[in-house]
Amino acid sequence: MVPIITAFESSPDGGQGLARDMRVRWALEEVGQPYDVRLVSFEAMKQPAHLALHPFGQIPTFEDGDLALFESGSIVFHIAQHHAGLLPEEPNARARAINWLFAALNTVEPPIVELEQSRYMVGGRPWYGDLRAVLEDRVRCRLDQLARRLGDAEWLDGGAFSAGDLMMVMVLRRLDGMGIREDYSNLSAYVASGEARPAYRRAFAAQKAVAASARSQGL
Amino acid sequence: MVPIITAFESSPDGGQGLARDMRVRWALEEVGQPYDVRLVSFEAMKQPAHLALHPFGQIPTFEDGDLALFESGSIVFHIAQHHAGLLPEEPNARARAINWLFAALNTVEPPIVELEQSRYMVGGRPWYGDLRAVLEDRVRCRLDQLARRLGDAEWLDGGAFSAGDLMMVMVLRRLDGMGIREDYSNLSAYVASGEARPAYRRAFAAQKAVAASARSQGL
Repeated sequence: MVPIITAFESSPDGGQGLARDMRVRWALEEVGQPYDVRLVSFEAMKQPAHLALHPFGQIPTFEDGDLALFESGSIVFHIAQHHAGLLPEEPNARARAINWLFAALNTVEPPIVELEQSRYMVGGRPWYGDLRAVLEDRVRCRLDQLARRLGDAEWLDGGAFSAGDLMMVMVLRRLDGMGIREDYSNLSAYVASGEARPAYRRAFAAQKAVAASARSQGL
Repeated sequence: MVPIITAFESSPDGGQGLARDMRVRWALEEVGQPYDVRLVSFEAMKQPAHLALHPFGQIPTFEDGDLALFESGSIVFHIAQHHAGLLPEEPNARARAINWLFAALNTVEPPIVELEQSRYMVGGRPWYGDLRAVLEDRVRCRLDQLARRLGDAEWLDGGAFSAGDLMMVMVLRRLDGMGIREDYSNLSAYVASGEARPAYRRAFAAQKAVAASARSQGL
């Protein structure tokens, strides 16, 4: 038995690897853990069976034997804790890598999601442009700070790639196509370093294949 | 030597325990770990010495010997991992408690912060009321889901209080005074259960004393 994750039957991003299952796929590929995927429709995500697994009706979920988890951060952390390769062994370096995992999810991602979601939430309102400018400034403030800390380092804690980098790269990838990250050459190089990893590429190909299959079925 | 945390010299909430140092103080009180506090002014938070500790220029930070951390989620997690009392020993229950810690920070807190921040960011614009209604709907959607999952349980995973509950209670407390959480009787009872814990009360008193001292100094 291998762990089972859930992913969108038909991802809103059409296979660009922006859905949160990509984070978990990438972590599983980094540590060499095979996995199965159960695809769920938007309709199924609102049904009791899925809500029992994920109280907020989203993807991904992670089932491994008797254990079920539902938050991408905690799934990536769980994988990192139970396999070598995503967290340093030295205790302080390990704590700092976990720190970056939380920073990606609680400090850097929220303003980016907000900017992204604003289009769906209020994109048609006459004041959308005003709001967007405010939200974009806030994202740039966070990127300024992150770029300053990263400097010329390849990864955030200066040493090896970690689960913290995996999550930060995924969070920064949410800016794809917005013309913002491109103003930060070191953050762009950082994301490119993540995307160049063989495990990332295998994970990306796997989720892209799902999207291609959904398209061919007219989903 | 005990760990040193940072907190606002003069908290914007005037001692209501909504600043993020409260999360760390509460965790330290739960496990019985004494700590020191270094107060920082808004000016000092933007200076190189503080930015070296916290790249995003916020509080809290946590220093313990050679280790420095800066994200409230990771500090609470670090405390929970190194002391008994905030995470179950049984591996699956422990993973689920950590899951709720991430859920509090990455799924429940962001829309609440957004609603709260909107007042500071765009409170003066003529369309603020329109935006606020949209943001409030989103918070209610999350609270509906969380209330459904919690049901009549005292704590989120059904068993003992954990670091996941600590963080969820703190996140839900950010709604104080907004007239939203009051519509969810089980979530209100859940927050009250957290606030009734002796460790919470000690932490609350400690941060309130700082605010009172700041007021008396005219800060």
